[in-house]
Amino acid sequence: MTEQPTEQPTEQPRSIVAGVETDGADVAAATGAATAAFPAYRSTTPVERAAFLEAVADAIEADRDAIAAAAVAESHLPEGRIAGEVGRTTGQLRMFADVVRRGDHLHVRIDPALPDRQPLARADIRQRQVPLGPVAVFGASNFPLAFSTAGGDTASALAAGCPVVVKGHPAHPRAGYLVARAVSLAVEKQGLPAGTFSFLLAGDKQDGIQVGQDLVTDPRIKAVGFTGSRPGGLALVAAAAARPEPIPVYAEMSSINPVVVLPGALASRDRAELAGEYVASLVLGAGQFCTNPGLLFLPAGPAGDEFLRAAAAAVTGTTGAPMLTAGIAEAYARGTRTLRSTPGVRVLAEGRAGGEHSPAAQLVETEELAAPVTDEVFGAAGVVVRYRDARELVPQLERLEGQLTATVHLDVDAAADTEAARTLLPVLELKAGRVLFNGWPTGVEVGHAMVHGGPFPATSDPRSTSVGSLAIERFQRPVAYQDAPASVLPEAVRDDNPWGLLRRIDGEVTLP
Amino acid sequence: MTEQPTEQPTEQPRSIVAGVETDGADVAAATGAATAAFPAYRSTTPVERAAFLEAVADAIEADRDAIAAAAVAESHLPEGRIAGEVGRTTGQLRMFADVVRRGDHLHVRIDPALPDRQPLARADIRQRQVPLGPVAVFGASNFPLAFSTAGGDTASALAAGCPVVVKGHPAHPRAGYLVARAVSLAVEKQGLPAGTFSFLLAGDKQDGIQVGQDLVTDPRIKAVGFTGSRPGGLALVAAAAARPEPIPVYAEMSSINPVVVLPGALASRDRAELAGEYVASLVLGAGQFCTNPGLLFLPAGPAGDEFLRAAAAAVTGTTGAPMLTAGIAEAYARGTRTLRSTPGVRVLAEGRAGGEHSPAAQLVETEELAAPVTDEVFGAAGVVVRYRDARELVPQLERLEGQLTATVHLDVDAAADTEAARTLLPVLELKAGRVLFNGWPTGVEVGHAMVHGGPFPATSDPRSTSVGSLAIERFQRPVAYQDAPASVLPEAVRDDNPWGLLRRIDGEVTLP
Repeated sequence: MTEQPTEQPTEQPRSIVAGVETDGADVAAATGAATAAFPAYRSTTPVERAAFLEAVADAIEADRDAIAAAAVAESHLPEGRIAGEVGRTTGQLRMFADVVRRGDHLHVRIDPALPDRQPLARADIRQRQVPLGPVAVFGASNFPLAFSTAGGDTASALAAGCPVVVKGHPAHPRAGYLVARAVSLAVEKQGLPAGTFSFLLAGDKQDGIQVGQDLVTDPRIKAVGFTGSRPGGLALVAAAAARPEPIPVYAEMSSINPVVVLPGALASRDRAELAGEYVASLVLGAGQFCTNPGLLFLPAGPAGDEFLRAAAAAVTGTTGAPMLTAGIAEAYARGTRTLRSTPGVRVLAEGRAGGEHSPAAQLVETEELAAPVTDEVFGAAGVVVRYRDARELVPQLERLEGQLTATVHLDVDAAADTEAARTLLPVLELKAGRVLFNGWPTGVEVGHAMVHGGPFPATSDPRSTSVGSLAIERFQRPVAYQDAPASVLPEAVRDDNPWGLLRRIDGEVTLP
Repeated sequence: MTEQPTEQPTEQPRSIVAGVETDGADVAAATGAATAAFPAYRSTTPVERAAFLEAVADAIEADRDAIAAAAVAESHLPEGRIAGEVGRTTGQLRMFADVVRRGDHLHVRIDPALPDRQPLARADIRQRQVPLGPVAVFGASNFPLAFSTAGGDTASALAAGCPVVVKGHPAHPRAGYLVARAVSLAVEKQGLPAGTFSFLLAGDKQDGIQVGQDLVTDPRIKAVGFTGSRPGGLALVAAAAARPEPIPVYAEMSSINPVVVLPGALASRDRAELAGEYVASLVLGAGQFCTNPGLLFLPAGPAGDEFLRAAAAAVTGTTGAPMLTAGIAEAYARGTRTLRSTPGVRVLAEGRAGGEHSPAAQLVETEELAAPVTDEVFGAAGVVVRYRDARELVPQLERLEGQLTATVHLDVDAAADTEAARTLLPVLELKAGRVLFNGWPTGVEVGHAMVHGGPFPATSDPRSTSVGSLAIERFQRPVAYQDAPASVLPEAVRDDNPWGLLRRIDGEVTLP
């Protein structure tokens, strides 16, 4: 069962539709308001839209103590982690403000008229990106702030010019409500239409699924952002595809994030230290990261044995931290039971269970890489596969499903490792959205070059990222204007370039 | 029934799988070869890949007489039109060669490491685009060259680094085969793997549908390009969505391309001349353009009446040209019968029928804009709607489905027209991929700023275009490299920038 908000909100700006009795009518009210807000909101100038995103960040910061307290209470995540998440959330909003102000995402292209071209004159053609329309965002359980109400999907959709309707995650209703209130205060402060942002909560799980379906099938919703389970994501993808007008769904779902340790890495590094880093990444946040390193390829032989003894000892020494919800802890218990009872799987180590909903970390070994061993177990469960020769790795990795990340540990001074890494990279880059070297996948930098995405089932759409500035491109599409009179042309594509945009003139990038 | 190739090919390079008995085994042979070719083909340098695209254009030009003759014979389109299409096809290939050589589509982003950042160091993160994998292309009936075997989808997929498997259109098997032979000769000449390009033909319609399904559901295919009917496109979209690993489908399907004539345009221009331009666009190529102006909004009143009398006279004076296939002519006959028997629809004019499969052009008027009047009739059938006030247009246009194009005719010196156009533009740009002014939608310029796409059902994915250089982006996705050693980094993201690429460093565009 879902927890209820711990106290009744005293102030409820009109653009929040929040309550435990949300039903279809509330969904329609929110999507109707979003549709009504769309023309004015998408017409904001870069300066106005950036100011709004910064006002959202300011409003969250103004209420950060209450927001952080609610998130800690509801998620059972440590205070330090939640404090970091507040900063990441506001940092993302400010980054998108910078992106919007710069305006490169408008991708202006101008092919000027060629009236004298033979055999046919060429028309004047100009291109820019326009926002898709109202976007539905489903926040994640495991990042109650940075991937939730005003998280990456909301920030990038608002940055693109799309109104947003958030379905609050039932695992953190109070934190969601407080953040939604902050967003709505910023909407009011900046004089934007109330429907620019709405927030919905549902009373229990069944209602929540219905509200989600109602939202995704509402004809006024034009795109969907989701972070959560594979069944949940696939249900939304199917619902969106079955609409009379199908719409894009960006669902981040499932990843076991393979890590390959090459022999040179074991030879050149302290095995116990490397194993300690691995286990720290594995149990971080009770293993509740989309990028949790669930699968490790380790060389056979004494150095690998030494690494594994140290890893097993480290896992044995851990104490389970409380998971986000009772349901997630139960799913972890089911997943690890399945894993341990799979033929060929041998338990290497088990940590101590903590208090309520705080199950023990698990480390297992297998030789056979097939489902269910390759299914994501959300939590601190690691699978180890030993290999004799780096050449065995390519077919093993090729059989895996799509991943958010793939990692290689190597000794850059060992020719054999470099050679192996160069062989693995073409396989890994087709399998994952991000390939890391000599690091651990947990922790996703928010920047311009980041990709948090990847082939199915890591996400439902690999052409995109949910973290970093490129995410704005999910929520827009190109439009061409042919021979448009100057008096009618949108600012972004006018000759005098009033917004000072980078433009591609006849295919050539031209700085403002 | 489909026509058979008019003579047996004497020379068949090994990468063409062509024959009237194509079945599942041939599909598997082609997709298997494409998968085998992918690692080498995607590893070609910009210079190598551009040379290949130019070699394809050269090979088509070397056989242009035979190709054009086959296309004319099979499509019944005039020689001049087909000659233009040969030029457009080779021009597209050469444009993509330039795009590949420049390399901007790789969208390189580098966020350098910040080892001293507090509280956490930042890793070095670099991003580039990688090709999705083997692409299935379904050519269009109405552009036997420019939208077919080596048309826009094939050219953009090859440019992105994806091997291509073409399912040849049964309406022009011989032209398709000859073009496929030219592509395969270029593949051989450039020393690329044979599976870089394959071509499949099926014996009859039922087999063709099966081959198409087999192709789209083959797990080795990673994206699909299609131009054709709405039922055909939707069937491929559904098949792709139902795969264990869903893949993107770019299906261009259905559009009636609304044209709005504003009062000032009628007042300032010769009505008969304007009407003549409209009818010329309507009957061009027997109306068999995706951008055919199927719906015209015309002011009520004497000037509109005058335009309409001239348009009716012009339609009456036309003689039907042979349509692409008997099936298409039959579908046109069914569509126009449905249109004329719809309550409220009044026939304004009818042309003369020509010879076989050469039905008469039709012009009708209605007051009620709803299906079936708003369904595409592929061919020279125009629907006219009269309006009293430009303000009536917004709700009418908002009710339309997504379109490839929308057009406004206005007098740029008339304040009321400009005001009306500024009111209409926000509606039209959300409804269509291209908005034209004082022109006609038939004829799509191939360039950097063009968008040939649009919201559903114009296409199945509005985030893209099938014409112009932006089309390369359909077939790639971003990958991030974190802390990759210099010895392992792909050329595109190396510090020394060996390909001389434009890069975004810490978010700032940096010219090479």
